[in-house]
Amino acid sequence: MKTKALFIAISIIASLIMPAMAADVGSDPLPSWNDGKTKQAILDFVAATTTQGSADFVPTEERIATFDQDGTLFVEKPLYTEFIFALDQIKVLVPKHPEWKTTPPFSTLLSGNRAAIEKLNPKDMAKIVAVSHSGMTVEQFKEVVRQWLATAKHPRFDKPYTALVYQPMLEVINYLIANGFKSYIVTAGGQDFVRVYSEDIYGIAPERVIGTAGQTQYTYGQGGKSELVKLPKVLMVDDKAGKPSAINLMIGRRPYAAFGNSDGDQQMLEWTESGKGKRLMMLVHHDDAKREYAYGAESKVGRFSDALMTEADERGWNVISMKDDWKSIFP
Amino acid sequence: MKTKALFIAISIIASLIMPAMAADVGSDPLPSWNDGKTKQAILDFVAATTTQGSADFVPTEERIATFDQDGTLFVEKPLYTEFIFALDQIKVLVPKHPEWKTTPPFSTLLSGNRAAIEKLNPKDMAKIVAVSHSGMTVEQFKEVVRQWLATAKHPRFDKPYTALVYQPMLEVINYLIANGFKSYIVTAGGQDFVRVYSEDIYGIAPERVIGTAGQTQYTYGQGGKSELVKLPKVLMVDDKAGKPSAINLMIGRRPYAAFGNSDGDQQMLEWTESGKGKRLMMLVHHDDAKREYAYGAESKVGRFSDALMTEADERGWNVISMKDDWKSIFP
Repeated sequence: MKTKALFIAISIIASLIMPAMAADVGSDPLPSWNDGKTKQAILDFVAATTTQGSADFVPTEERIATFDQDGTLFVEKPLYTEFIFALDQIKVLVPKHPEWKTTPPFSTLLSGNRAAIEKLNPKDMAKIVAVSHSGMTVEQFKEVVRQWLATAKHPRFDKPYTALVYQPMLEVINYLIANGFKSYIVTAGGQDFVRVYSEDIYGIAPERVIGTAGQTQYTYGQGGKSELVKLPKVLMVDDKAGKPSAINLMIGRRPYAAFGNSDGDQQMLEWTESGKGKRLMMLVHHDDAKREYAYGAESKVGRFSDALMTEADERGWNVISMKDDWKSIFP
Repeated sequence: MKTKALFIAISIIASLIMPAMAADVGSDPLPSWNDGKTKQAILDFVAATTTQGSADFVPTEERIATFDQDGTLFVEKPLYTEFIFALDQIKVLVPKHPEWKTTPPFSTLLSGNRAAIEKLNPKDMAKIVAVSHSGMTVEQFKEVVRQWLATAKHPRFDKPYTALVYQPMLEVINYLIANGFKSYIVTAGGQDFVRVYSEDIYGIAPERVIGTAGQTQYTYGQGGKSELVKLPKVLMVDDKAGKPSAINLMIGRRPYAAFGNSDGDQQMLEWTESGKGKRLMMLVHHDDAKREYAYGAESKVGRFSDALMTEADERGWNVISMKDDWKSIFP
């Protein structure tokens, strides 16, 4: 058979199979979600932006979706995973830095005072991240994180932190990817930290992770080989108004869909909504103390404030109730 | 026919076609290159890194190639394209900034003194880029650049600047992409500037353009819609030692192949070479005054110094002779 004939044969066969396959796969791309308006909002958004001829059709190259991490994709309580890593790292490094014992926010971390530690703000976090993550090459840092993740366990669920991802959100990431979207993580956490495991647990490549980042120093090491050493200096804080700026820096496009769970995500959602055409803005609300945690709006705890809940209501953003919208929480 | 049987049929047909197609496409992926050791170095690198079972095999997700832009992918003489844009922009903006007439480097640009303008260093360039590219939203800036590019023409070749790309390098970009590499631009030029046309002329998406970047300010505009306004403040200078740092920030992986043409690319090539396994380091040498320009090593002009040529010789980097290695220069 000639090549051209083979191509025609394949095209015909493909045209017979593909619609059937799409129908199969598409029957329920979000099986861990209960039916309702939240789930429907996701399905409607994807249909509107990916259907040729739709008024809201978005070309594939512009399909960008951004996801906050802590509290949106995985558990952030009782402390950010990275804080716990940083605490362990600070303990490892403190013999070389006795001054930390009396210098906040390091002294706060070393005190072991949970209540005080939980009150540290994103700026403190950025400082702790920058310092505890520095003084080694970028490759050495990845190895330190890998080793820590292999043994550290969540105090309540007694599982590795990387196992505590939200199954419904994994389904959203994959559903969007299957529909031509590029899914990015946009986190106030350390970019280099999250990049170590993002591919394994979310299927999101390191270059699609945007986070708080420190400066690096170019140096010549053994045998004249060059390395990048992590410095204890913050380059950018990827939180609040820093999120749109970081997205613009790293992607150069405005997202069509954005997912968050805290006041740190407010501007990312506003900026997403301010673009032309149909956009999807969603906030995970932690209202499930039994299966996970309850905090944020109404509970007067955490960074998801009543003000943000009011803004979400006024703007018509979708608030995801963990309790009502999610059949299961973890894989 | 059942779905499974159809799949098997497709698999069989595909297995018959694919090797023939690969042989067809692979016969000469670099038709604008003369045969010789430079072209062979590219072919050997791709074969070694993409052949399953090869000692130097690189998994697809780690295949990163980085390309400097000015002088590596398109003409940078007599001035960087972006300098000419900046000069035009400074002239547009100067009524609002009379102090520029007496403040270097703006006064240098406004003097029209070509020799002085050509001597501006990357730090001056970053300042000019930051200021001339600021005071508007990121979307407005894109539109200004788009309009400028549509009419501006190169003084010698009398063509739009975006037409003056090097055909042999386009073939390398495409050859690497066809072999699973992700091709990035890593330029001392303005990230937001290059992103406007990178997809059109190189087939490289905006999010794969890394460049010198300014800070942005999150603001609320008309109707409460939020925007990012470009500030006249440099966030990072993507030149020399700044290139490895920027690559780490934006990608989080070390490249396997790096292409440059000047001292600004030295550290990017060193860092690439310092990784494990087979790597490809190439420098475009401008030795073709007839078809393009002659400058750099030996000519004692430009940023590609004799020192860099010596380093290339000692390390065994591949120096591309435009005169000898390229059959044609432009598409």
